[in-house]
Amino acid sequence: MIEETSKKTMDHKIQLAVEAYQFLKNTTIKERAEFMNAVADHIEALGEELLTTAHAETSLPLARLTGEKARTIGQWRSYAKAVASGIYTESRIDLAQPEKQKGDLRKYNIGIGPVLVFGASNFPFAFSTAGGDTASAIGAGCPVIVKAHPAHPKTSQIMADAITATVERSGWPEGIFSHITGTSHEIGSYLTQHKDIHAVAFTGSFNGGKALFDIANRRENPIPVFAEMGSINPVFAFEQLLEDKAENLAKEYASSLTLGVGQFCTNPGVFIALKGNHLNRFITALKKEITEIVPVNMLHKGIFDNFEKLKGIASEQSEVEIIAEVNTKINEWQGRAVVAQTTGQNFIQNPILSEEIFGPFGIIVACETSEELLQIAHQLKGQLTITVAGTAQDVRENLNLINLLKDKCGRLLFNGMPTGVEVVYAMQHGGPFPSTTDTRFTSVGPDAVKRFVRPISFQNWPDEFLPEELKDENPLQISRIVDGEVNSGSLKLETV
Amino acid sequence: MIEETSKKTMDHKIQLAVEAYQFLKNTTIKERAEFMNAVADHIEALGEELLTTAHAETSLPLARLTGEKARTIGQWRSYAKAVASGIYTESRIDLAQPEKQKGDLRKYNIGIGPVLVFGASNFPFAFSTAGGDTASAIGAGCPVIVKAHPAHPKTSQIMADAITATVERSGWPEGIFSHITGTSHEIGSYLTQHKDIHAVAFTGSFNGGKALFDIANRRENPIPVFAEMGSINPVFAFEQLLEDKAENLAKEYASSLTLGVGQFCTNPGVFIALKGNHLNRFITALKKEITEIVPVNMLHKGIFDNFEKLKGIASEQSEVEIIAEVNTKINEWQGRAVVAQTTGQNFIQNPILSEEIFGPFGIIVACETSEELLQIAHQLKGQLTITVAGTAQDVRENLNLINLLKDKCGRLLFNGMPTGVEVVYAMQHGGPFPSTTDTRFTSVGPDAVKRFVRPISFQNWPDEFLPEELKDENPLQISRIVDGEVNSGSLKLETV
Repeated sequence: MIEETSKKTMDHKIQLAVEAYQFLKNTTIKERAEFMNAVADHIEALGEELLTTAHAETSLPLARLTGEKARTIGQWRSYAKAVASGIYTESRIDLAQPEKQKGDLRKYNIGIGPVLVFGASNFPFAFSTAGGDTASAIGAGCPVIVKAHPAHPKTSQIMADAITATVERSGWPEGIFSHITGTSHEIGSYLTQHKDIHAVAFTGSFNGGKALFDIANRRENPIPVFAEMGSINPVFAFEQLLEDKAENLAKEYASSLTLGVGQFCTNPGVFIALKGNHLNRFITALKKEITEIVPVNMLHKGIFDNFEKLKGIASEQSEVEIIAEVNTKINEWQGRAVVAQTTGQNFIQNPILSEEIFGPFGIIVACETSEELLQIAHQLKGQLTITVAGTAQDVRENLNLINLLKDKCGRLLFNGMPTGVEVVYAMQHGGPFPSTTDTRFTSVGPDAVKRFVRPISFQNWPDEFLPEELKDENPLQISRIVDGEVNSGSLKLETV
Repeated sequence: MIEETSKKTMDHKIQLAVEAYQFLKNTTIKERAEFMNAVADHIEALGEELLTTAHAETSLPLARLTGEKARTIGQWRSYAKAVASGIYTESRIDLAQPEKQKGDLRKYNIGIGPVLVFGASNFPFAFSTAGGDTASAIGAGCPVIVKAHPAHPKTSQIMADAITATVERSGWPEGIFSHITGTSHEIGSYLTQHKDIHAVAFTGSFNGGKALFDIANRRENPIPVFAEMGSINPVFAFEQLLEDKAENLAKEYASSLTLGVGQFCTNPGVFIALKGNHLNRFITALKKEITEIVPVNMLHKGIFDNFEKLKGIASEQSEVEIIAEVNTKINEWQGRAVVAQTTGQNFIQNPILSEEIFGPFGIIVACETSEELLQIAHQLKGQLTITVAGTAQDVRENLNLINLLKDKCGRLLFNGMPTGVEVVYAMQHGGPFPSTTDTRFTSVGPDAVKRFVRPISFQNWPDEFLPEELKDENPLQISRIVDGEVNSGSLKLETV
C-alpha cells in the first residue's frame, strides 16, 4: 500500500527545500561534489536487500540490477567530478576599466531553485529516486523533491533513506532532499504548480510529460520542464551494408529490439530500407532470431497490458503484416517479441505506425525508392536516436538524407544499435520534440547538470562578498574566462 | 507607409530559411565568424544616412545613435570572436573503448533552426534588425527572419540591406536573412506559429512577450521564446551609505532614472530605503536634480501616451505623493521626469506600484523597519537588475536580504546604477520571470549565442563524415573535452 502524501506534508517539504536552497546556493562546487560522492558511497554500501527488493518489484534480472546499481553510483561520482571541475559554473570575469568608466562584472551559474524529479519505472535506480536527475540537480545546487514511481515503492524508499542519511551526516539542512509517495496524478500536478518549484525532470510517457509541460507553462511564473518521453529510434539501413551484412545486422537488431524486453527509451522500433533481395535476407534472418527469444516478464502488469494493446492496434492496421513472433506460450506478463512489416507509403500515410510501442515490437518499412526514404525522413518527428546502418559508400550516396536526419534526433549512430546509453560527456540523451520537451538538454551524462543552473552577474562587488568561484584569488582553481580569454590562475598574482 | 508582408511572402521566406539552414548548420565556426565580421564592416561603412534616418524616426540624439552604432558593430565583432573560439560548440569526445564495448561518441552544438527576431523600439540598431539577437542567431548557425519594428522602418531597411548585401557577397544562400515588415500583431503571431520557426527572440513589453511565449508553447512542437520584457530594477539603499553619500547618490539616481528619457529596460524605477534623516537628505537633493532635467522627446507618440497614462495611474494611488517633477512646459511628446513617494506597507500592498512604467518615473519607498525591506524583497517579482547601494558594513548587516535578492534578478549591483549594459562575457541581461521568459539565458554579451544552439551526438562515425569541430585532427584548434579532460590538441598526434 503506497501512502498518498498529503498537501500539507508536500507544502512543508517544499518549504524545507526553499530554506535548504538558501544554504545550498552558497555552497561551493567542491562541497557539493563531496556530498555527491558521499551519496555514492552510501548507495555502494547498500547490501543485497536493494537488489532483491528491486528484483521483486520490477522483474528486472539481478544481473541487470547489479549493473544499474553500478551505473547509478557512477553517475553520482562522474557528475560530482564534473561539478567540481567548475565547468558548469561557466565563470566569466570582466575586470573594471576605470578609464572607460566600465565597472567590474563577474558572472557564474547558481542552482535554479528547488527541483521536482519524477522517478521512472524502467530504471529503478539510474532514473529514479537516486537517479541522474537527482544527482544533477543537487550538483547544480538545487534541493530535490522526488515524486517516487509507484511501481517500485520499497526500492525508492531504500534509496531515499540513503540520501537522507547522507544529508544528516553532512549536517546540511534536511530540505536538500525530500521523498513524496502516492499513486494519484494530482500529486504531480500539485507539485508542478507549486510556486516554489523552479524546474521539473521527468522520464516516461508522452502523455505524462506533455501534461506536466503544459501545467508548468500555464503557471503565473512558468518554469522549465525536462521531460524525456521516448521515441521510435528509427534505423535506416542502406544497400551496400545490407548486401555485405544482412544476417549480422538482423542479429544485432533483434538483440537490441528485445534487450530488457524492449523497455528502453532508445529501443529501435522501426527499421527502414529499400525492398529487395538484401532486405529479404535480413528479414529471413530476423525471423529466425526473433522466434528464439525467450519471453520474460515486463516491469509490471500495466506496462504489459499497454504493450499488448498497442501491439494489437498496430498489427490491425491495413498493409501491416506480422512476420515474426515468439511462439512460446506466455505466462503472467511476459513480453513476447513481435516484428511486423509494411510499405514505405503505408508508413508515410498512417501516423499510428510512427507511435512508440513500449516493449519488444519492431516494424520493418520496405521502401520502393530512395525518394520514399527521404520522404520518411522529412516527415519523422523528433527522436532520441537515429541509426544509419551503412558503409562509407552508402553514406556518400545519401548525404542529403543523412544531413536531414541530424534535425530529427539528439544522437546519430553510424552502425551499432541505439540501446546502451553511455554516461559520458559526449552523450546526448534528448532529442527534438516530442522525444523530449527540450532538445537543448540531455538527461544522461554530466551535462545533465546544465538543466538546473542559471547565470547571475555581480557588478562592482568587493571580493569578500563574491562566491569562491569568482574571487580574485580563484581559490577553487577553476578555469574562467577573464577579459575574454580562458584563465585558470589567480588574478591577485597578476596584479602584484 | 509600412508594407504588410503577405502570408505567401512569409511562407516563401521561411522556406528559403529552411534551405539556408541545411547550408548554415554545416558551416564551421570560423566561416560564420568571418561572415559576422563582414556584416560588421558593412554596417561600419554605412554613412550619415543611417544616423539621420534613425534620428528622424526615433528622436534619439545623434551622439547616442553614434554610440549605439559602434556598439552594434562591436556586438557583431565580439560575438564573432567568441563563436570562432569554439566556446559555444561545447565539443566533447569520448573515445571508443573496444575492450569495454564502448563506442566512440562525439557531441557538439549546432544551430537550432530558423530563428524569428523581433526588432525593439528603444534600440534601433543594437536590439533591432541588425542587433544582438540577429548576430547571435547567425553565430549559432541559424538563419534569421526579422520582424522589423514599425517605429523605425527606414532604419531597419538600411540595416536589412546591409546584411542582405553581405549574404550576396559571401555567396551564401539568400535565406540566411529575411526582413519582414508590417504593423499588425497577426504577422508576429503567424510567424511564431509557423512549424519551421525553431526559436523566437523578442525585446519589448510584458504583454507582447508573454503572448508570443504562450503561442509558442501551444504549438504542436513547442519552441523556446526568449523575451526580455523589462522590469523596475529596484535600488535598495542602506543606512551607512545614505549617511555618507545621500547627495551623491541622489545625483547618480536622477541621472540614471532620466538617461535616454528613461527608455531603458534597466531603468531604476524604484528606490527603497529606511525612512529618516538620511533618506530625507537624499530626497531633498533628488528634488533639486529632477527639476533641472530638460525634457526631450520620447521614441514616439505611443510611448509618450503610455508613459503619461501609467504615470497618472501610479500618481493617483492612495498614499502616493508626487515629490518632484520637471516644471518646464512640455512640447510634442517630451517625457517629463517625475518622482513619487510612498510607504513600505503601501508598496507591499498595492501591486500597481510594482508595475514597470517605461519612461523617467521613479518611486521612493520609505520603509519603517528592516523587516519591511525584507518583506519587499520576498515579494519582488523577477528583475533584470537589483542594486545594493551600501557600504561593506551595510552588506555585512544585511546578508540575509542580499542573499534573497540573488533569487530575484539576473544582475546584482553593488553601488553604481543599472543603466549601461556592457557587451561582455560576464554580462547577464535576463532575469527571473516576468523580467524575461527564460532566466537561464542572456540577450546581451556573446553568451547570447547559447540561446540558439542544441547538442547533437555522433556515435561511431568515420572521421571523414564528422564536422570539423569534432574531427580527430582538431583542424579548428578549439578546446574540447576529450575523455573527461580539457584538450586543445589533435587526437591524431597522440596516437601516432
